[in-house]
Amino acid sequence: MTIPRKVAVIGAGDIGVGWAALCASAGWPVAIFDLNPATMERGSAEVERRTRALVALGRAPESIVERGLRELVRAKFFSEAIQDADWVIEAIHEDVVAKQKLLAAIEQAVGADVLITSSSSGLSPTEIFGRCRRLDRCLVAHPLNPPELIPLVELVPEGRTSPASMNRAVDYLRSLGRFPIVLKKSIPGYVVGRIAAAVWRESIDLVLRGVISVDDLDRAVSLGPAIGWAAAGPHLTYHLAAGEGGIRGFTQHLLASFESWWQQLSHWAQLDPEQQRALIQSIEKSYKGKVEFLREARDRRLSAILRALEQARAPSGSESD
Amino acid sequence: MTIPRKVAVIGAGDIGVGWAALCASAGWPVAIFDLNPATMERGSAEVERRTRALVALGRAPESIVERGLRELVRAKFFSEAIQDADWVIEAIHEDVVAKQKLLAAIEQAVGADVLITSSSSGLSPTEIFGRCRRLDRCLVAHPLNPPELIPLVELVPEGRTSPASMNRAVDYLRSLGRFPIVLKKSIPGYVVGRIAAAVWRESIDLVLRGVISVDDLDRAVSLGPAIGWAAAGPHLTYHLAAGEGGIRGFTQHLLASFESWWQQLSHWAQLDPEQQRALIQSIEKSYKGKVEFLREARDRRLSAILRALEQARAPSGSESD
Repeated sequence: MTIPRKVAVIGAGDIGVGWAALCASAGWPVAIFDLNPATMERGSAEVERRTRALVALGRAPESIVERGLRELVRAKFFSEAIQDADWVIEAIHEDVVAKQKLLAAIEQAVGADVLITSSSSGLSPTEIFGRCRRLDRCLVAHPLNPPELIPLVELVPEGRTSPASMNRAVDYLRSLGRFPIVLKKSIPGYVVGRIAAAVWRESIDLVLRGVISVDDLDRAVSLGPAIGWAAAGPHLTYHLAAGEGGIRGFTQHLLASFESWWQQLSHWAQLDPEQQRALIQSIEKSYKGKVEFLREARDRRLSAILRALEQARAPSGSESD
Repeated sequence: MTIPRKVAVIGAGDIGVGWAALCASAGWPVAIFDLNPATMERGSAEVERRTRALVALGRAPESIVERGLRELVRAKFFSEAIQDADWVIEAIHEDVVAKQKLLAAIEQAVGADVLITSSSSGLSPTEIFGRCRRLDRCLVAHPLNPPELIPLVELVPEGRTSPASMNRAVDYLRSLGRFPIVLKKSIPGYVVGRIAAAVWRESIDLVLRGVISVDDLDRAVSLGPAIGWAAAGPHLTYHLAAGEGGIRGFTQHLLASFESWWQQLSHWAQLDPEQQRALIQSIEKSYKGKVEFLREARDRRLSAILRALEQARAPSGSESD
């Protein structure tokens, strides 16, 4: 278990706040900073709320959470945030130029042994680290939303990232209870963004075509394929869907169905303003409750699923990690 | 709670066996039949195994399961299976002509008040019921694999299906602990097939391009987006991903990322023989264990997730069906 001296999170939006809550919930020293004072104020309060919520959800012990929150630095200046940090997490909005500038500023201000990760959800590491000089300690560590609950973190190396830095990122993340997966190379959207984009496009299309309502679509995915994929990823799902023949039997009998569907899936790449309006209205009509309460309910379901999977994994002993 | 006199399942492959196990686990009288004697023999044994597995998984009480299995009819003839049934489930392979013939034969042999459902995973109801005369009691009820565990069932009406038959199917399925979702109209692949096809195409593409291994892809989906979608469907996920602004804020800030990914997603509709071979080899290399053991482990995870979601839903009392 490797623990950094201090973690600095730059950016106090949803993802930055999640990273800070995750580190604080492990009792790690963490600083958070945002250039925008309003975002910083809202973000600081939100780190506290979300860190404490992890206690209520049974994801972290109260004593450690309180220690983490006592040590939490709500930095007034960028320099205060990164001082003494040996892991700096960039978590600002998804903008290549803004990330390039910030990552260059981080690099100039920290020592050569500091790990620098970007939370980008799909940009090329070579682009966002384009103004950095020592790329051996730079990589993308992309968490899902909310980062303090969903275990997966995608690690995307830049061509020059050192194996030692990759290992260090893996160690840190495992110590935080995360499940890092290393991509062999970068691709726009990485793995998660591409799969999420494929799902959301089809989900939007089915609603706009009038096949299903927003809430029925959501329930269908939640209570159908999502539960299935949470128990066995897509490839394993089809390996187990055709009896003893495995994937070989599946492709013989059922690939033809998939091929006919692939031919007919939606392939648009943009929503025109009218479609955007229709989508937003349908979603807002389906989910009238306050976003805050809907998130709390989701987070209860998320933590229940995580606990269930941890317990289902534990007794067999056959699965590591 | 509406219970049929007797359910007849025609087809003893994976899906038919799952339907029969589900009905038997509820203590319902159920008959299963397959024209192929070898499939019938294997299927009958498998119904018993899978029904009893539901006890071990905590999904059904032993006394009811044993009653269901005592009453299970392993029919020697088609006529024996459908006799006295008031719900007939077609569960043969995905072939339009074969389904048309079987559904016409079922209709000729049963009374006008018998509900007839097809388990098709994506064919047009108008086509598969094309040789039937009384379409008011015909519809598609598409379960996922394994039907006795995953709650979702897609209901797809033919244009002439009566509302009373739709309601009856919904009642039967809810009595079986299923979660039926009614599509407003049919579309190739329905909802689940289209979303599954979108996910699998991208999952195959990422492996064939060398971005990620089969097992890392599966773990990434399982421990990332799938957990997220199980707790909140795709539309709700993005409604909750941009703070208080909800989906409106999300489209302002993050739609551009999705649009750039949509442009770049894979759009092939066929795997050439070489790609099929490579895919099968990668999946078989990743999952060397016996299909049987891999399924058992998946089913343990599935039932743990189901229990967790049931418990997370119960206390709030705010969510009905």
